[in-house]
Amino acid sequence: MVSYVTVVFEPEGKRIETSLGNTVSQVAEEAGVGIRSECGGEGLCGKCRVIIKNSEAVREATEAERKHLLQPEIDSGYRLACQTRISRNVTVMIPPESRLESRKIQVLGLEREVKLNPYMKKFHLELPKPTLSDIRPDLERVLDALSQQNKKVGSLEIDYEILKKLPNIFRDANWDVTVTVWDDHRIVAVEPGDTSTDLYGFAVDIGTSKIVGHLVDLRSGKTVAIGSIENPQIIHGEDVITRITFATVNNANLETLQKLAVDGVNKVLHQACTKAMVDPSRVYYVTVVGNTAMHHFFLGIQPKYVALSPFTPAVKRQTNVAAKELKIGINPRGPITFLPIIAGFVGADAVADLLATGMYESDELSLLIDIGTNTEVFVGDKDDILCSSCASGPAFEGAHITHGMKAVTGAIERVSISSDLEVEYETIGDVKPRGLCGSAVIDVVAETLKHGIINSEGRFNPQMKIRRLRKKGGKREFIVAWGYETATGKEITVSQKDIRQIQLAKAAIYTGCSILMKTKKLREEDLDRAFIAGAFGNYIKPENAKSIGLAPDMPTHKIRFVGNTAVTGAKMALTSKNMREKIGLISKKVRYLELANDPDFNQEFIKALSFPRQRI
Amino acid sequence: MVSYVTVVFEPEGKRIETSLGNTVSQVAEEAGVGIRSECGGEGLCGKCRVIIKNSEAVREATEAERKHLLQPEIDSGYRLACQTRISRNVTVMIPPESRLESRKIQVLGLEREVKLNPYMKKFHLELPKPTLSDIRPDLERVLDALSQQNKKVGSLEIDYEILKKLPNIFRDANWDVTVTVWDDHRIVAVEPGDTSTDLYGFAVDIGTSKIVGHLVDLRSGKTVAIGSIENPQIIHGEDVITRITFATVNNANLETLQKLAVDGVNKVLHQACTKAMVDPSRVYYVTVVGNTAMHHFFLGIQPKYVALSPFTPAVKRQTNVAAKELKIGINPRGPITFLPIIAGFVGADAVADLLATGMYESDELSLLIDIGTNTEVFVGDKDDILCSSCASGPAFEGAHITHGMKAVTGAIERVSISSDLEVEYETIGDVKPRGLCGSAVIDVVAETLKHGIINSEGRFNPQMKIRRLRKKGGKREFIVAWGYETATGKEITVSQKDIRQIQLAKAAIYTGCSILMKTKKLREEDLDRAFIAGAFGNYIKPENAKSIGLAPDMPTHKIRFVGNTAVTGAKMALTSKNMREKIGLISKKVRYLELANDPDFNQEFIKALSFPRQRI
Repeated sequence: MVSYVTVVFEPEGKRIETSLGNTVSQVAEEAGVGIRSECGGEGLCGKCRVIIKNSEAVREATEAERKHLLQPEIDSGYRLACQTRISRNVTVMIPPESRLESRKIQVLGLEREVKLNPYMKKFHLELPKPTLSDIRPDLERVLDALSQQNKKVGSLEIDYEILKKLPNIFRDANWDVTVTVWDDHRIVAVEPGDTSTDLYGFAVDIGTSKIVGHLVDLRSGKTVAIGSIENPQIIHGEDVITRITFATVNNANLETLQKLAVDGVNKVLHQACTKAMVDPSRVYYVTVVGNTAMHHFFLGIQPKYVALSPFTPAVKRQTNVAAKELKIGINPRGPITFLPIIAGFVGADAVADLLATGMYESDELSLLIDIGTNTEVFVGDKDDILCSSCASGPAFEGAHITHGMKAVTGAIERVSISSDLEVEYETIGDVKPRGLCGSAVIDVVAETLKHGIINSEGRFNPQMKIRRLRKKGGKREFIVAWGYETATGKEITVSQKDIRQIQLAKAAIYTGCSILMKTKKLREEDLDRAFIAGAFGNYIKPENAKSIGLAPDMPTHKIRFVGNTAVTGAKMALTSKNMREKIGLISKKVRYLELANDPDFNQEFIKALSFPRQRI
Repeated sequence: MVSYVTVVFEPEGKRIETSLGNTVSQVAEEAGVGIRSECGGEGLCGKCRVIIKNSEAVREATEAERKHLLQPEIDSGYRLACQTRISRNVTVMIPPESRLESRKIQVLGLEREVKLNPYMKKFHLELPKPTLSDIRPDLERVLDALSQQNKKVGSLEIDYEILKKLPNIFRDANWDVTVTVWDDHRIVAVEPGDTSTDLYGFAVDIGTSKIVGHLVDLRSGKTVAIGSIENPQIIHGEDVITRITFATVNNANLETLQKLAVDGVNKVLHQACTKAMVDPSRVYYVTVVGNTAMHHFFLGIQPKYVALSPFTPAVKRQTNVAAKELKIGINPRGPITFLPIIAGFVGADAVADLLATGMYESDELSLLIDIGTNTEVFVGDKDDILCSSCASGPAFEGAHITHGMKAVTGAIERVSISSDLEVEYETIGDVKPRGLCGSAVIDVVAETLKHGIINSEGRFNPQMKIRRLRKKGGKREFIVAWGYETATGKEITVSQKDIRQIQLAKAAIYTGCSILMKTKKLREEDLDRAFIAGAFGNYIKPENAKSIGLAPDMPTHKIRFVGNTAVTGAKMALTSKNMREKIGLISKKVRYLELANDPDFNQEFIKALSFPRQRI
């Protein structure tokens, strides 16, 4: 009996031998081939469409597949990767709409001036050789030389693995070495010769969707290269809850998610090091931010109780683990610091936002909204900050939207509707469009609202007789792009259900903001500033965000779209002791409000579903 | 061709399959069968005599063997284990004189009052469960509860491996746990339920010849069990230099010695835990002392440069390594502290001596001699201590003496000569004697000196006509036990060469003392006290030690034989923070004098070879 089969993935031509009976998704994961998925392989999202070239090699279509695929599609080989089990050698084509590709990711963020004072320092030492009248031990020679160069070196420790090699390193290097010291008290590397110009750190943001890392020269504080990839955990679910559910099943699953996060960080590191031609062993320190789920996944902590009421994380304060222990490919004795979190749904990424925007030390009363699948909201100033987390869902990231997609090549990112009700759009990469990313969906809603195509309850206006507004299967939808314009040959549309998703998302955020404001006894006009963060923030038109009620109704110049501030905060902590200490204080100081505890929550939420009255 | 052979060791009957061409020593090591050796398998010491039952199974006797064995011995199967290569299945008998057995080891030592204040503490906590109005993270709950119980708990850290498991431990234990905290700042264990009565530490002395460990209840400071074994490194040489030479060959050899030391400590730990019925995972802290070579071996640091001029060790200050990393079988996150050393030939055992005798804080001017293969000598008081190391050789431990042996069952330990020149002796274990241990050799020298059988130059008096003084092969020897009295049927004698060994050893120690005294401008009568340490110290008669010039010529009541103080010092550091801090200060404060640098050394040494004038 044949128990192994060969699977070839096109268009890459990647070939892999695998066990009989695996699903296409499982084999793709094994082969490192990216296929979209939002439901974690449950057959629910229908996004993992693939084309099977020899249909006799797979089992029959399941009920789940028949829900997402038309019979003619199945006849021409279309199947869902997560449902299709392989019984013979097979060639699988991944169509463009199902591919995971490098996205357009906002990696620059906001940069604030930070006084350079990193934890990791290097000292080039030419040590005196032992003689009968100078019998100091090897380590004593280093410590004495260091205290001559740097008064701050106090009670120094040395990593055991280095201590073991010390006698040979010194004598092989003829006593000319460079010593790397962590926080003035621990020697983490001893290298032959003068390597003092090679001193790098890495600041990384593990987002639910993407991982972004800055390779930073710790002598100048400057980013020398940036790496970014899709978060590889995405094969186990687009959203955090799906992944937590997966991790809860057993320890092996949790380890899988940890490994994927670690591998992801290593890939981003490798990317950045290759660009800047830096040897990864000359990277000595990593700061990591991410939401609480990413924090638990990356550290391999069971995240089950983060998702169950009362949503308690295992740890709040910053966590330090040696690179070797976590298998991060920098210098093995370099520390990895996961910055502190605030609560179950307010992670280190949010703490980094506060650091990067500086609102924790400002006299101005600010609102900060970090939009993601969970959206964190903060209100306050230097005296007090109140925060919460809103279950806004992934609609603003293009998920759970009929033709939604992430901000990658082929995504429509801007849409406007002219006075003669014609549509103009811009596509990422200037190619034929394949779908709509979050900013485009916001534009469509704002523009259709402005032109009365939808009303303030989000309903399509049946009185409006235009070609682009049509009924299909009894349901109205708005056509953004005609079939002949698109990459797939199919129309790209926005349905009533899609608008509903946007309403739910913006209502969740609005409710969060308004309960925080109410708790702090503030009105919208009291706000001096609003920061809107998130990787896609820069592409949103402020006027459109205001008109759908996503941004507060305040003068546009007071609203700042700050991009990915999380990685900026991580970088600030990487290059400045002072900043890292501040982060600890922020994490302790910020008060968390559980929205579900507020008796007005449901009422506020229902009220917030409507769009604001339009000023025309 | 046969490439494997079977070897059976008698009297144990241990059977092993091994590669063709190995030596009997190598196979015995593989099989875990102990055979004596002092030269590290070089064919020099002649102590590894074994009897080959089928002589055709081994290759011919080598030149080295012919030097140590008589033809009739070779004819009856006697061979040296380190020289004999096996070419067929063979049975090897290990005669009593070549067996490594449990020795009589001085394990009680000197105990001084120490205020109990260990680094490791336990706290039983009943934690509040999380609710929607108390969403503190799991770790925060512990820290808050600890700070309620103990004001001292400051900026606490938690071991990463425990943090990972925290959510499950807490919920499985229904929030009723016991937390073990190291030095008020690091959580090293979280156990379900109340385990606060199970809190143990282990103090161990890795001697060149033996390993002794005290299992200590850290709540009372009391030793609950003692373990002790032969240092298993002995198969690679009786003395330190042979082992260092072995370790210098390659890293694999160094790793072998490290593994033997670690296994040895684990055996002693297991012994003590079994006696006291303590689960080794409830032992949380280990303090280790040993000479500088043992220090480097145990930590896996290349010891080559300790043995080469100018004899610099890799590190002097105390070294902390996690049990897991060193593979010591206590709680995996418990720290192992190797106490600080002073110099290449003055180790942590000597520092522990100073701590245990208290001479570092005394007004009295003291001399401390810790006798071993290397003998450490200290002179001073609370204001200043000068120390050195004397290459005294292993004669006082019974090695390099014709019928010398260690203080194990069958060793003569006390000898006196009556006025009618007859010999009386006592044997360890009240069995037929097999040889002389160190104290017996000192007795023989002192007693023959007293009766004029040898003169002050150490020469046998040819005028003395007694039956026990005879000439054999042209050389004089003194018969301690007649053949019919002994276990081997052979006479036990002391030769002119043996007396010479004792002279060399005591001269080395005496020279060390006198150069230290001269450097500090002191005379013998200035001394208030002398401490003589070493595992066999208690069995030496003070008057005999004085009469051969080993102990200083001072009133006997001022001389204290303090036994194995090294393990006592380790225990003091185990149970008291204050003591461990003092040990650090001692290691820094004591000045080391390299005897080889003193221009008078040779002259002093030659002068010291003679015995003191006897007062009869």
